[in-house]
Amino acid sequence: MSAPAPMRMAMIGGAAPSMIGPVHRIAATMDRRFELLAAIPSRDVARGREAGAGWGIPEGRVYADMAALLAAERGRLDAVAICTPNDSHYAYTKAALEAGLHVMLDKPLCNDPREGAELAQLAHDKGLVLALTHAYAGYPMVREARSRVAAGEIGDIRIVLVEYLGSGLAKRVEDGPDAARRWRLRPEISGPSLVLGDIGTHAHHLACFVSGRRMTQVSAEVRTLMPGRAVHDYAQMRFRLDGGATGTLIATQAAAGAQNDISVRVFGTIGSVAWRHSARDYLTIAGLDGESRTIEAGSPLLCASALRASRIKRTGHTEGLHEAFANLYADFADLIVARRNGDLSDAAAADLPLARDGVEGLNFVAAALESSAAAGKTVDIAIA
Amino acid sequence: MSAPAPMRMAMIGGAAPSMIGPVHRIAATMDRRFELLAAIPSRDVARGREAGAGWGIPEGRVYADMAALLAAERGRLDAVAICTPNDSHYAYTKAALEAGLHVMLDKPLCNDPREGAELAQLAHDKGLVLALTHAYAGYPMVREARSRVAAGEIGDIRIVLVEYLGSGLAKRVEDGPDAARRWRLRPEISGPSLVLGDIGTHAHHLACFVSGRRMTQVSAEVRTLMPGRAVHDYAQMRFRLDGGATGTLIATQAAAGAQNDISVRVFGTIGSVAWRHSARDYLTIAGLDGESRTIEAGSPLLCASALRASRIKRTGHTEGLHEAFANLYADFADLIVARRNGDLSDAAAADLPLARDGVEGLNFVAAALESSAAAGKTVDIAIA
Amino acid sequence: MSAPAPMRMAMIGGAAPSMIGPVHRIAATMDRRFELLAAIPSRDVARGREAGAGWGIPEGRVYADMAALLAAERGRLDAVAICTPNDSHYAYTKAALEAGLHVMLDKPLCNDPREGAELAQLAHDKGLVLALTHAYAGYPMVREARSRVAAGEIGDIRIVLVEYLGSGLAKRVEDGPDAARRWRLRPEISGPSLVLGDIGTHAHHLACFVSGRRMTQVSAEVRTLMPGRAVHDYAQMRFRLDGGATGTLIATQAAAGAQNDISVRVFGTIGSVAWRHSARDYLTIAGLDGESRTIEAGSPLLCASALRASRIKRTGHTEGLHEAFANLYADFADLIVARRNGDLSDAAAADLPLARDGVEGLNFVAAALESSAAAGKTVDIAIA
Amino acid sequence: MSAPAPMRMAMIGGAAPSMIGPVHRIAATMDRRFELLAAIPSRDVARGREAGAGWGIPEGRVYADMAALLAAERGRLDAVAICTPNDSHYAYTKAALEAGLHVMLDKPLCNDPREGAELAQLAHDKGLVLALTHAYAGYPMVREARSRVAAGEIGDIRIVLVEYLGSGLAKRVEDGPDAARRWRLRPEISGPSLVLGDIGTHAHHLACFVSGRRMTQVSAEVRTLMPGRAVHDYAQMRFRLDGGATGTLIATQAAAGAQNDISVRVFGTIGSVAWRHSARDYLTIAGLDGESRTIEAGSPLLCASALRASRIKRTGHTEGLHEAFANLYADFADLIVARRNGDLSDAAAADLPLARDGVEGLNFVAAALESSAAAGKTVDIAIA
Repeated sequence: MSAPAPMRMAMIGGAAPSMIGPVHRIAATMDRRFELLAAIPSRDVARGREAGAGWGIPEGRVYADMAALLAAERGRLDAVAICTPNDSHYAYTKAALEAGLHVMLDKPLCNDPREGAELAQLAHDKGLVLALTHAYAGYPMVREARSRVAAGEIGDIRIVLVEYLGSGLAKRVEDGPDAARRWRLRPEISGPSLVLGDIGTHAHHLACFVSGRRMTQVSAEVRTLMPGRAVHDYAQMRFRLDGGATGTLIATQAAAGAQNDISVRVFGTIGSVAWRHSARDYLTIAGLDGESRTIEAGSPLLCASALRASRIKRTGHTEGLHEAFANLYADFADLIVARRNGDLSDAAAADLPLARDGVEGLNFVAAALESSAAAGKTVDIAIA
Repeated sequence: MSAPAPMRMAMIGGAAPSMIGPVHRIAATMDRRFELLAAIPSRDVARGREAGAGWGIPEGRVYADMAALLAAERGRLDAVAICTPNDSHYAYTKAALEAGLHVMLDKPLCNDPREGAELAQLAHDKGLVLALTHAYAGYPMVREARSRVAAGEIGDIRIVLVEYLGSGLAKRVEDGPDAARRWRLRPEISGPSLVLGDIGTHAHHLACFVSGRRMTQVSAEVRTLMPGRAVHDYAQMRFRLDGGATGTLIATQAAAGAQNDISVRVFGTIGSVAWRHSARDYLTIAGLDGESRTIEAGSPLLCASALRASRIKRTGHTEGLHEAFANLYADFADLIVARRNGDLSDAAAADLPLARDGVEGLNFVAAALESSAAAGKTVDIAIA
Repeated sequence: MSAPAPMRMAMIGGAAPSMIGPVHRIAATMDRRFELLAAIPSRDVARGREAGAGWGIPEGRVYADMAALLAAERGRLDAVAICTPNDSHYAYTKAALEAGLHVMLDKPLCNDPREGAELAQLAHDKGLVLALTHAYAGYPMVREARSRVAAGEIGDIRIVLVEYLGSGLAKRVEDGPDAARRWRLRPEISGPSLVLGDIGTHAHHLACFVSGRRMTQVSAEVRTLMPGRAVHDYAQMRFRLDGGATGTLIATQAAAGAQNDISVRVFGTIGSVAWRHSARDYLTIAGLDGESRTIEAGSPLLCASALRASRIKRTGHTEGLHEAFANLYADFADLIVARRNGDLSDAAAADLPLARDGVEGLNFVAAALESSAAAGKTVDIAIA
Repeated sequence: MSAPAPMRMAMIGGAAPSMIGPVHRIAATMDRRFELLAAIPSRDVARGREAGAGWGIPEGRVYADMAALLAAERGRLDAVAICTPNDSHYAYTKAALEAGLHVMLDKPLCNDPREGAELAQLAHDKGLVLALTHAYAGYPMVREARSRVAAGEIGDIRIVLVEYLGSGLAKRVEDGPDAARRWRLRPEISGPSLVLGDIGTHAHHLACFVSGRRMTQVSAEVRTLMPGRAVHDYAQMRFRLDGGATGTLIATQAAAGAQNDISVRVFGTIGSVAWRHSARDYLTIAGLDGESRTIEAGSPLLCASALRASRIKRTGHTEGLHEAFANLYADFADLIVARRNGDLSDAAAADLPLARDGVEGLNFVAAALESSAAAGKTVDIAIA
């Protein structure tokens, strides 16, 4: 079987100083599932041109806005990757879907649940893939965790503990020279709750992904720890999952000394699984008798989804964020192929976060904010 | 300077199958600060006699009840250690204090905050020491954590995360042959909330001990995860500390695969400290720039209180639960000496959990239960 | 400054089932320092064609042998990447250098120290870069370790302990269906000592790289642990470094349960550094008083070379083997640029393993084999 | 069954500033298997008296020399614990055995293999127990490792790697105010090789204990790394075990930053076990497929010997050096009881290091020194 030709992709956003733009570029092209052929790297034309050159895009295919791109690239693209600030996700995504393009969108889906639902519906109506980079779903051992929980290895789920602790806002970054560029600090751009949109939705997705359950209720406190800050930097909440399991979610970017420390632990009736990003290549499964097993990425014992998520199919040679993203891009490509073959289900990429997951994330944010505003009252999360 | 003679102690409770009785016995005598001379090892006379013989207590000094002990041992004892089921703490402690004996009491102080306050007052009025075995305060690296936080190494405290996850109630122990002996499963003995009294008070104490702050408010959910269980086995809550820091406390004995996993993390404005029981000999202090320091028990860099808490004053030769308890017993002895010398302050053993800490723990339990009963309403914790 | 155009590269070897071929392809193109434009993916023409298509190489630029490639691609290439079995390294590299191409060669340099020296001399005479993928030199925290040792943070070096423990040959792979393809099991291809050529040279390089010292003497035992195996699978040796430090090197692929576990520890007069591949994002530096510091990849505290070796310049978002290789390719590109600018020194990429390092590795192998044949006699390692 | 009365013990040595004396005292009495009734705490009469008082020994039973003790205590003692400097082990042990006392002796057995063999023979002839505190054999997870290896869980043994890295001699302790007291720095007291006698014998014992094999050959380098030091502080060697397995042993007290870091790894044909003192409560068993299991002290899955070696029979509440020593003392008591019952075998305490192990250790030291003096020539280790 010869390898399929790469699909044709345009990138929206991602020019320096974007941190995530280069990750998208490397990941999308790593497995040659996509070629990066056109772009709107930045609203700033000069920076966009420089970025486009760095990405190897001919000058003529670097555009200043979406209208220009869509007009000029009609019929020459299969998909777009969007990694712009949150407030523009809705418009870019809508335009791309309306133009018949599949979309890989950096999370969160957008800043408003209704707009999110509209995008999900639009993708559905068009038979297009609208995927989201909840990157932790791209790690092989997260997939393995999900698979083992689904297979009943830990019994019925009782407790889910999920954390996302970072230190990016532990200092007063507002005063730095780059503050103006830091769109995250402006709520009108980053959305109703920075901590929830930026990392809380990751934690929410991870908890649901590994447990295989929707989150149904939340009692939350969402705050700003740093005096004078315009955005939320701390959230802690209790939640219920579909089926009755309980748990706690903590998310903050104001935890000095924490290094992008996302983890999930799921405790069931006969065992538990634990995954932590700082030891991402391992999954620990503990039983009731003081023995735990640790499985390593690359092991032949892994489930199919986890195995597929490693390029280097050997233990001890493991991968990182670029490859996690690349796994999502590979799933994205598989799902596009399925759509082309008339398969409108998501079976070809069951682990890929899609629009509905994004709407669930936005509903989660809305419920958490409502709860926090009501002194922690328990609030139902709307069904996506 | 020649070593002081051991103080004379009686043990109340602790016969097999008590897990904690032998720990008290070993710890109290390890440093020869106490001699175990009399006992009421069990309400069961035969078991008590057997235990007393195992402890080297002459048969004539093994008693069936407190009245007999106090009558016969008048003037022959300095202190008692009480490690009976929770519902008897009040009466034994009261009797001992009234007889002029210092008391080392297994936590919780008792099952009722008012009775707890009465005991605290009684000890105070009598000039006696009433100490509690919140054992984690006996670990050198917990003391070091407290000392570093107090010294400002992490700046002002923002967040405290404390967990105590165990698996003792992950299985249905109610059905086992020993269920009748498991007084913890009977709320009339173990108190208003098993999970809170048994391990939640440890977590509460640890959070307050390391942060140096009182807990002032709580929004809690306290539950029973195991169907049909008569006692609570799960608690999760948000809290406020005096001065405004926020945090989350999770305590459960129903977490399959968790092994007495108590940990505390304190995040401040310029760094954080983390201690976890499973790596008890280490303290990690992280800064803002991706560098952390790990200090090991036995290091000459430790604070005086932590150094004193190691017998083997070398790194790499570390100690465990017996020694943590022994550190509390050494503090207890020091405080008794101070009282004898007319010092009614607690300065001689600033790290030793005392009656007031116990009352704070009971008030914490009461507030958490009130909050949980009111669907998570935020409740103030009464001041001890 | 606009990004330079990628250099034009051909790949020799790397078709399936090569494990390392895809790593070279991904790494060389990740930062767009190279474009893969031509290839001899395999001696097997059909497999080569399939691989070339998968790599996006036009069919006309996929060749069956080096002569055809060099003839057809004259003036259209800057460099070649060679990742063929060891016995062909010499001929491919020689041909490429003679054609004026820079070479990135999978280690070991070749199977014979004299041929290795000839290649090094040829590259030197031609002013070309001949680099080797000792990939561990591409990890940021290995670079940081080297930098800290060089800066005197651990004082004068006393002891170096280096291990490379793998399990690839723990089972009898000889009997498997793929045995015929496993060229490593045939000494006439893999060279005089499989364990030394395949992983021993990595351990040797890592020890020298981090310590900043040549290895001067060795007393070795090189063996075959698996009965009936035609190649060495175990080596253990004591060594001396230039300047007098001592150490031990252990390398084996027959350690059941070891997962590509390479590590190095360097102990000096006032401290030590430790790096282990299974926790590749961290470097631990211990002092004399029971305190150690752990630095994480992405930290702003890192040296320039380590910082440059992370794409994602944040702690907690770390990278793996592909990126380590990509760092070597970036260095390779920098050094080619330096050569073009008339700089014949290696200053532009001081961390990149070059031909001389490869010759040192071959001399190390030769000395270890000579020592082992003489019952462990101490043997001097020839100077490259 | 009522508990047996403690056996009557005298302690030889152990007064301050001894580090190990208090460990013996706490361990011997922890389980009430022994009572400390008499002592020669120090050759210095005043220090001995002070120490004796601190240990609760009546002044009249504190002696200045062995002759006085044996004369006065005839018929009043069952055993002695000897923890004096190495050069006096022979004479004290011989006198005690001749007086019919069982002996627990701090390792090494003595400084001379012939004297060691004489002591072993004497104990045998008298039917007395002569045990040694190779304390690592007292840790439950070391016993579990031994048991699993013996049960064939890792298949046939191929490789044993053992290390003991400490930092006690990393600084120039010779210049300190305490140097005169540091008998270890005087070879006439500490024996022919400080590093080998002090910690090398521990590493040797651990390797043999876990593997269940004798060490038969060694090729060693034994050195002094610190300029001007009168004793050895570094040893590295290759060895063979009975049955053909190979391995490496490294021992040093001059490794800056190492914290009493003793570890053993045993690799067999189908798996491996690893134990490391810094995580002493855990044993890791790895298989061939990228999965490992970690068992924790206190688990009901442990072998009988490991279970017996925990007082707190629950996971997550683990113990340390005092308890490891106490396990040896408990074994010692069991073996004394067996002897009294006419059982001259060692079956009652199969894990307790005995005189023959001590002779093996001395023979190991002698062979390593002979090898090192002959430039690493392979030397047979004499059979004990």
